[in-house]
Amino acid sequence: MKTGHRVTKIDPKQKRIEVLNLSQSEVQLIPYDKLIITTGARSRRLNIPGSDSKNIFTLKDLQDGVRIKNYIDEKRPKQVAILGGGFIALEMCEAFRLRNMETFVFCRRDLPAGNLESEISERILKELQVNGTHFLTHHEPIAFKVNSHGETISFETNKAEYPVDMVLMANGVIPNVEIAKEAGVELGKAGAIRTDKTQSTNLADIYTGGDCCEVFNLISQDWVYTPLGDIANKQGRVAGENAAGGEATFSGVVGSAAFKVFELEVAFTGLGTKTALKYGFNVDSQVIEAESKVGYMPGSKRMLIKLIFDRQSGRLLGAQMAGKEGVARRINALAVAVHQKMSVDEIARLDFAYAPPFSAPFDPILIAAEQAGKKIRNQKGGILK
Amino acid sequence: MKTGHRVTKIDPKQKRIEVLNLSQSEVQLIPYDKLIITTGARSRRLNIPGSDSKNIFTLKDLQDGVRIKNYIDEKRPKQVAILGGGFIALEMCEAFRLRNMETFVFCRRDLPAGNLESEISERILKELQVNGTHFLTHHEPIAFKVNSHGETISFETNKAEYPVDMVLMANGVIPNVEIAKEAGVELGKAGAIRTDKTQSTNLADIYTGGDCCEVFNLISQDWVYTPLGDIANKQGRVAGENAAGGEATFSGVVGSAAFKVFELEVAFTGLGTKTALKYGFNVDSQVIEAESKVGYMPGSKRMLIKLIFDRQSGRLLGAQMAGKEGVARRINALAVAVHQKMSVDEIARLDFAYAPPFSAPFDPILIAAEQAGKKIRNQKGGILK
Repeated sequence: MKTGHRVTKIDPKQKRIEVLNLSQSEVQLIPYDKLIITTGARSRRLNIPGSDSKNIFTLKDLQDGVRIKNYIDEKRPKQVAILGGGFIALEMCEAFRLRNMETFVFCRRDLPAGNLESEISERILKELQVNGTHFLTHHEPIAFKVNSHGETISFETNKAEYPVDMVLMANGVIPNVEIAKEAGVELGKAGAIRTDKTQSTNLADIYTGGDCCEVFNLISQDWVYTPLGDIANKQGRVAGENAAGGEATFSGVVGSAAFKVFELEVAFTGLGTKTALKYGFNVDSQVIEAESKVGYMPGSKRMLIKLIFDRQSGRLLGAQMAGKEGVARRINALAVAVHQKMSVDEIARLDFAYAPPFSAPFDPILIAAEQAGKKIRNQKGGILK
Repeated sequence: MKTGHRVTKIDPKQKRIEVLNLSQSEVQLIPYDKLIITTGARSRRLNIPGSDSKNIFTLKDLQDGVRIKNYIDEKRPKQVAILGGGFIALEMCEAFRLRNMETFVFCRRDLPAGNLESEISERILKELQVNGTHFLTHHEPIAFKVNSHGETISFETNKAEYPVDMVLMANGVIPNVEIAKEAGVELGKAGAIRTDKTQSTNLADIYTGGDCCEVFNLISQDWVYTPLGDIANKQGRVAGENAAGGEATFSGVVGSAAFKVFELEVAFTGLGTKTALKYGFNVDSQVIEAESKVGYMPGSKRMLIKLIFDRQSGRLLGAQMAGKEGVARRINALAVAVHQKMSVDEIARLDFAYAPPFSAPFDPILIAAEQAGKKIRNQKGGILK
């Protein structure tokens, strides 16, 4: 591993890369037999006046985290504005509130985690509010007002101007594909490096993996951009094995993820309603609330489960859950079910481990699946079978 | 619902039951169109001298629990002997230790939960010991010594005599089949009522469900006796629906269960090594230890996972887990995998929800499955694929 070096060019014909030694400003040409492009992604930064102020941060890697922590320790900011309503934005609310900072989340949409089902997003919004976070909707950023020290002191949107001591831009990430693209590596429709199940690119002996490339979604059967740590990890192993002469494949993902907003666990797998409709599925859904364990056990909490399924076959297309206990680890059983194209009726008959400290005799997942099955049969006008 | 009544006889030819009114000692004949036998099970009691003493308890239902609690509250016993090393015995250790009672578990076998894999049982033994429970092996009960008040004061085994103030017999359950058997209802090889996927018995218009009957194990493809609350619940619904003219089926179980021993969560699904061998599978297994979440997160604990799989095909036959955090709800993903006859290689490629508060990028299940796959390939002498 070479630190302090940056690849500036890939030459696929000569099979070599151009490397800049950052300390000596020297360029070196290094030949390769096999090349793996794992250039990752970078935080998207809004390009509005003042957006390069010292106290505007993004959060992608450890360095970013250290920078944010140091700034808070030194300057003790009182008010923070978070731009964006995705996972990073939501997870950081807790960190800022723990530091007693007045926290404002500015979001273009109605609800946080806008890619999730509205029932789940509403639950997240409630959790933000209970924890003293201000969630401001339909704000279009216009500019930051900067003082003579190069620090933002206010944030102006289409609606008003807000005083801020610190800003976190959490507007998603952009894949780092520039050098690859320049070398003739093809990109997919989402702008990330196009790849296949062997993690190859269109160019001979060049592989890729991680946040710079696409991944195959097994439910939509489409190549999508889903930059997540566990996917990067798996793709990297396959790319490495194949570059070393192996024959590994990475079959794809179903789209599982989880995050935590204060005490609320949120987890999902598969497709949401909107995405499933976009891919032509005949979508229906069922929402239920259930206890995380037997009601008489201490610490039992209500959780929300939404199942998204095919209206005709009952095939489970996706599932989303939110609750304060026993949510994140429950979703994986549904991740397997989505992967295996199981129907809600098949899921309702699964044999789960039951013990009062962990679930009710009918696990929330089984209740949700049973209700979904009933809904399908009722709509078909049939009797319960 | 009639309380205070006991069914004393079933007459399948006349389609009526004989009911004893317990308060008036009257017998009544009640006709039926459809009959559902859900007579449950009762605790097995050792038949040795003194085993009917006042302070010897079993634990099957709420009444039993109330009786035990009242006895402890009134008599403040200092020493309790638990006979048996199964789930009930192990779960009750915590209850007794919380009351500061010296707790002795007398077990015929080497290890607690002797039906589980030895690695899991050893972990349970350690948890018992850390919590001040005495686990005594290879003890054959001989007699209880009873005082003039009809109370046991000591327990004699083939090895020694132990002073006791209270005894819990936790030697499993026996299905209540006597009345059914007398009426001509067939029993299966395990002594419980023989049934099928519609919860019918061999006699017309008589259904059954719950702890008095068998259940189909989808992995061994055999009818077995697995008296568990969640299975009873599902069988009861199917029996009821069919008795009411429906066409419901209960396809069977894979054998999932969970329990808690002090702070240790234990969960399992599918077949163990011994059972899988008995059913003719070409069995191999893999044990790993892994962190329940990312190591830097507070509260992460090491867990033990054992996968039992077919040596040739890699098909997962069963899984067992033990650990202090995130175990019981993790097993259900493997319950689905066992149900779907997935191979360890397929499992290793599953897309699970990853977030640092809940798991590492490679979930313990994925690590175990990957290691199992490697073991298979190494044994076949092949290279890693």
